[in-house]
Amino acid sequence: MNKTFLLNNVRIVLSHTSHPGNIGSAARAMKTMGLADLRLVNPKRFPDPAAHAMSSGALDVLDNARVCASLEEALSGCVFTVGCTARRRDLSHPMLSARDAAPVLLKHAARQPVALVFGTEMSGLTNAELDRCQLLAHIPSNPDYSSLNLASAVQVLAYELRCALPGLPLPPADTPELAQHEDVELFYHQLERTLISTGFLNPAAPRRLMTRLRRLYARTLLEKEELNFLMGILKAMRKVD
Amino acid sequence: MNKTFLLNNVRIVLSHTSHPGNIGSAARAMKTMGLADLRLVNPKRFPDPAAHAMSSGALDVLDNARVCASLEEALSGCVFTVGCTARRRDLSHPMLSARDAAPVLLKHAARQPVALVFGTEMSGLTNAELDRCQLLAHIPSNPDYSSLNLASAVQVLAYELRCALPGLPLPPADTPELAQHEDVELFYHQLERTLISTGFLNPAAPRRLMTRLRRLYARTLLEKEELNFLMGILKAMRKVD
Repeated sequence: MNKTFLLNNVRIVLSHTSHPGNIGSAARAMKTMGLADLRLVNPKRFPDPAAHAMSSGALDVLDNARVCASLEEALSGCVFTVGCTARRRDLSHPMLSARDAAPVLLKHAARQPVALVFGTEMSGLTNAELDRCQLLAHIPSNPDYSSLNLASAVQVLAYELRCALPGLPLPPADTPELAQHEDVELFYHQLERTLISTGFLNPAAPRRLMTRLRRLYARTLLEKEELNFLMGILKAMRKVD
Repeated sequence: MNKTFLLNNVRIVLSHTSHPGNIGSAARAMKTMGLADLRLVNPKRFPDPAAHAMSSGALDVLDNARVCASLEEALSGCVFTVGCTARRRDLSHPMLSARDAAPVLLKHAARQPVALVFGTEMSGLTNAELDRCQLLAHIPSNPDYSSLNLASAVQVLAYELRCALPGLPLPPADTPELAQHEDVELFYHQLERTLISTGFLNPAAPRRLMTRLRRLYARTLLEKEELNFLMGILKAMRKVD
């Protein structure tokens, strides 16, 4: 069975890209591997002639790219988000190589959109952006010079996604529906309010508590129904207050 | 055991590159994966500020790149040559995916230099260039748009080389020494002369005979000693004439 339809559910998100040429090159890299959904979070310059020049025959990807005011907006509707990073991080998320991350992304893309997020050319993803990811993917590289060009990193990940298609087992029909990004964010917001109201969380000295809780829940891959009852629990707790 | 030393024996050859920016980007892609030996066959413009701008922190690769007047010169000393191609070719060479070609290249790089050759941005490798390759490598891609940027293609192949390192079995110590590119070329030259002198090959109607013979011998991966006795046979035949 042809599984290339899975690639339609993989969104590439470029956050705060400095050079429009890189956006064009990334669009080309995406199209060579069959990806089409590009979202740009606050690009420095876009649209821009340099982006068009570098996109070569992938103008359609560029023309359909959506500019978003925030990562939240770019991830709207997604049920699984992978951040691409060159460096090890502290308090780290689960991290896989690009090769091992690709089938995981595609597995979740079977029914709902997933996202692959790339940070700026200079410094990659911020910690706040990492907090929105369930998994990190890294590209094995020369430890003395690991700085892949942004479009090259997109190319390698997109290539791995395409290579992962043929061997991918088809998902069982009864896979539970996962919770969408914006609903999970609403849960974190309510959770934080509740923790503050109970006095457990002191906003003046939060000690990365929310980051730790985010990472805990990110690992569980919340299902839509599970999220509903977690929200119910929070609501019940607020009434007790 | 650390096998990254094998990458030192992998030469990247870019033939007739049009855009100097692509040369710089290719140098950067190489360095991110630990490759350093770059040869440029008749680049349109090099050195060039655009190449330097795109190389980012890989100026050393660019500064050490050698400009060559011919593919012959660029392949001097190599014992195994792989051509990178996007399309199927007629009368075709053995062709592997980038993933499967990488360990084959590294296996031969254990003792002597090997080369990975990329053609022009517009049309790839010529048939004459393909005749110098023992193997073709292709990058799986979108059949409707398979046109990877040159530096992106270098990035994917270099990435596959780096990924192939850990699982690579070490070559046995008694691997026979392979014949070098220029010696094999001399053999083809003598063979052609001999075939013409015997009347078997009509230079006015060569019917791709030499191409077929090249492909036959390319598959055998001639050892140095084998080449010596083939040259001896040719010499003996000419004396009989």
